Amino acid sequence: MKETSEKTGSNIVLALDLTQKKSSNLLSKSIGMLETVYPYICAVKINRQLTLPLGVFEGIRKVVNFAHDYELPVIMDCKINDVGYTNRAIAEWYFKAGFDAVTANPFVGWCSGLDQVFEAANKMRKGVILLVYMSHKGSEEGYGQIVQDQETSKLSPQYTVFAKKALSWGADGVVVGATYPEKIKEVFKFLKNRVPIYSPGIGVQGGKIESTAAAGTRFFIVGRAITLSEEPDKTAKAIRDISKRFMTEY
Amino acid sequence: MKETSEKTGSNIVLALDLTQKKSSNLLSKSIGMLETVYPYICAVKINRQLTLPLGVFEGIRKVVNFAHDYELPVIMDCKINDVGYTNRAIAEWYFKAGFDAVTANPFVGWCSGLDQVFEAANKMRKGVILLVYMSHKGSEEGYGQIVQDQETSKLSPQYTVFAKKALSWGADGVVVGATYPEKIKEVFKFLKNRVPIYSPGIGVQGGKIESTAAAGTRFFIVGRAITLSEEPDKTAKAIRDISKRFMTEY
Repeated sequence: MKETSEKTGSNIVLALDLTQKKSSNLLSKSIGMLETVYPYICAVKINRQLTLPLGVFEGIRKVVNFAHDYELPVIMDCKINDVGYTNRAIAEWYFKAGFDAVTANPFVGWCSGLDQVFEAANKMRKGVILLVYMSHKGSEEGYGQIVQDQETSKLSPQYTVFAKKALSWGADGVVVGATYPEKIKEVFKFLKNRVPIYSPGIGVQGGKIESTAAAGTRFFIVGRAITLSEEPDKTAKAIRDISKRFMTEY
Repeated sequence: MKETSEKTGSNIVLALDLTQKKSSNLLSKSIGMLETVYPYICAVKINRQLTLPLGVFEGIRKVVNFAHDYELPVIMDCKINDVGYTNRAIAEWYFKAGFDAVTANPFVGWCSGLDQVFEAANKMRKGVILLVYMSHKGSEEGYGQIVQDQETSKLSPQYTVFAKKALSWGADGVVVGATYPEKIKEVFKFLKNRVPIYSPGIGVQGGKIESTAAAGTRFFIVGRAITLSEEPDKTAKAIRDISKRFMTEY
């Protein structure tokens, strides 16, 4: 990610979450969108909006290959949260389909949980990005709750416990919603430059690049602000240009 | 579920999580397994071990249709835990593919979180089953942690907070791992017969039907104990017979 970001001069991850009632045209629209905005992004993130209708080994493989042709890494935002045996199968299938990294929920724990995902990723030289605080309102119910830290017995916010796990488990990134810049700040204060912060929720969900960047976000995940725009290329370029002002800080 | 269970005289949900390095034969093996054990089960649960290689609108649709031909409902164990917009897309695609219910993680919260899943399910007359305590060891890190209940401010185990949410959100079932009968007991004491408990982890993971049933489980999710057995039909029948002894209690 760091390399691509430096090479492309961008720290925008395109969330290619196109939605349609029918799956026809979804593949060509996805590839068309990539073709339009690739000069302004450093990676692509794909979610179930695309994998379920297109099939991981059918249409999705074509999208991944297309992104790779432009040397863009592709993240599968599958938010893994199952038992180890299933987690490993999920991670391995996505990696086999060409994905470079997966997202996972640290709530599921390490033993017979995410240990299997990190093992599979290390073996296949892929990445794991952990959720620390999500961008939606309900986030406060789980990620924002106060929990008893199982190491120190102190009462702490859930997201600080997750940030600690991300560091000790060797995660390649963490997700903190752009809609909560004060949380980004707190997480960045702890992680510093050891684990980069990815922030979704820029644009339609209300997150702003300026406040997010100032708080410590390294990569900005932008979806509908670009994909639903009348001129996706101009919008992507404009967002990239704003974010670029903050890149030198890292 | 209740109807199928009464009609079939079984409360065994088959976890059809076959694994193979290659996807060839996975479809025929899945359908062959269903054909062998259908008389002894009341529902089928499918996970990503199958959907990723087979494709939801390709092979999986055939498996779902096959199960429906035997009047067996099919649960997609997708453990939804994303933002509302994505959660709705995930639920809708699975429902469109024929699934009768999905599983979801209450950790993601209600607002712009699982509200969208319940809305989609109600609209399409489908079910939502919530995770309350999982079957693997790492479960204690998240599901077993002590949290501050956001309603009462009291310190409580996470799983009791989740059980309360399941009731107030109108879930059609909750998952509590068969490997933790004392947790099942506690959740059952609170939910009683208002929300049925589904317990995975019977067999290979170490859960026992007897202790699980005595604790309050209504549906037993059995996977590898049947699918990896030399004679799946005999094993399924034997497990069904043991569990049947406990059915009259409900």
